[in-house]
Amino acid sequence: MSGFVSFVGSGPGDPELLTLKAVDRLKRADAVLYDDLSAGPILDHAAPGADLVSVGKRAGRASPKQDHVSRLLVDYARQGGRVVRLKSGDGGIFGRLEEELVAVHAEAVPFEIIPGIPSACAAAAAAGMPLTRRLTARRLQFVTGHDVTGKLPEELNMAALADARATTVVYMGRRTFAGLAELLLAHGLAPDTPAMIAVGVSTPEQSLARSTVADLAQRLRSEPPDRAPTLILYGALAEMSDA
Amino acid sequence: MSGFVSFVGSGPGDPELLTLKAVDRLKRADAVLYDDLSAGPILDHAAPGADLVSVGKRAGRASPKQDHVSRLLVDYARQGGRVVRLKSGDGGIFGRLEEELVAVHAEAVPFEIIPGIPSACAAAAAAGMPLTRRLTARRLQFVTGHDVTGKLPEELNMAALADARATTVVYMGRRTFAGLAELLLAHGLAPDTPAMIAVGVSTPEQSLARSTVADLAQRLRSEPPDRAPTLILYGALAEMSDA
Repeated sequence: MSGFVSFVGSGPGDPELLTLKAVDRLKRADAVLYDDLSAGPILDHAAPGADLVSVGKRAGRASPKQDHVSRLLVDYARQGGRVVRLKSGDGGIFGRLEEELVAVHAEAVPFEIIPGIPSACAAAAAAGMPLTRRLTARRLQFVTGHDVTGKLPEELNMAALADARATTVVYMGRRTFAGLAELLLAHGLAPDTPAMIAVGVSTPEQSLARSTVADLAQRLRSEPPDRAPTLILYGALAEMSDA
Repeated sequence: MSGFVSFVGSGPGDPELLTLKAVDRLKRADAVLYDDLSAGPILDHAAPGADLVSVGKRAGRASPKQDHVSRLLVDYARQGGRVVRLKSGDGGIFGRLEEELVAVHAEAVPFEIIPGIPSACAAAAAAGMPLTRRLTARRLQFVTGHDVTGKLPEELNMAALADARATTVVYMGRRTFAGLAELLLAHGLAPDTPAMIAVGVSTPEQSLARSTVADLAQRLRSEPPDRAPTLILYGALAEMSDA
């Protein structure tokens, strides 16, 4: 007898940014597998008897083996359970969703994917600005600041990234941004291109700071590492907030 | 006495994809200004006495003057009301949010922005696939298929768009995709690059169809216009769904 897996985006952290559908699935779950960023009050929606299993990874800390998470998902489902796999933000954006989808496909476990509020959308909202702008930012791009080894990914599309007419959001880019910024400037992006760093978006620890690409790179070069989830936005950012 | 404006992303259409915060703001609103795509059951959350004002635009139809919407927002707020401005998807992504933000700033009306589920995230979720892929799609970009005149925007960054190692989502691109595809192929994108068209995502009319860039362009060239909201995805799409 087969169970069912709901891959649920839990949003950036604020429990009020859960969707109604996410809350429904949490209430009905027999087991909830969650990342660190989906913990806390979000889990209060789960039924008292549900198994709550942390499979979390956090910025700067080694991830648990992805295979182990996939195994756990499939095992719970095979016992006939309703399993919720919570992923922070939208699971489809830098959420390592594909590996787990492959696992449930391989075992023919039925599943659904419920989208969540991407952290980038919450960061812009918190800063009081849109991510796209009618005439000046008609392209919005999300990239990751590190590859599997923790370094800046190779084979970056610099023509895409050094484009001042786009809004670029770098996920997990704190440790590599100084290096990325060097490449951006070498490819023609102006040093005073607006930038914003957003830490712990939508949580009580949220901090937003506006800067420029060059100044932010300089600051991050000398700053100790921070484990809170960080987004860096740069490009044609609107200058309309108090952030 | 000043009111308050909540710019609220209503998600792609499924009322279950509203956030808890969006529902809260709807319940407490004195007036709700909504687009066509945010109509229907989503508005059922509003209190019985609230003013529900359609300021909607729909694909293929002329928009009401943006000035008029901004005026209405400010007027309601100045009467001391709690105003909800519903925008489909996430208001910060191709939602013309900036013009309305400028208006409330100019009148010093206090406001907040509540992010919503972007249609692109819901489309990928419905297709059972992630938007990013660990080794093959580390860049995700959203672009709009037309400018203010309804034509393909000028000054497209073709190096960014003709990149098979990214996932590209084209908003409002049905009428211009054939032209865009010609440019993409001329800039080296393979004709058999995976593509998907998603219409009416998360609504009862949802349809998803997988194809290739060349085949989809061919089909859209000969197809009558459709007013349902359409997304076109292409690039390093995962091949894991039943869509």
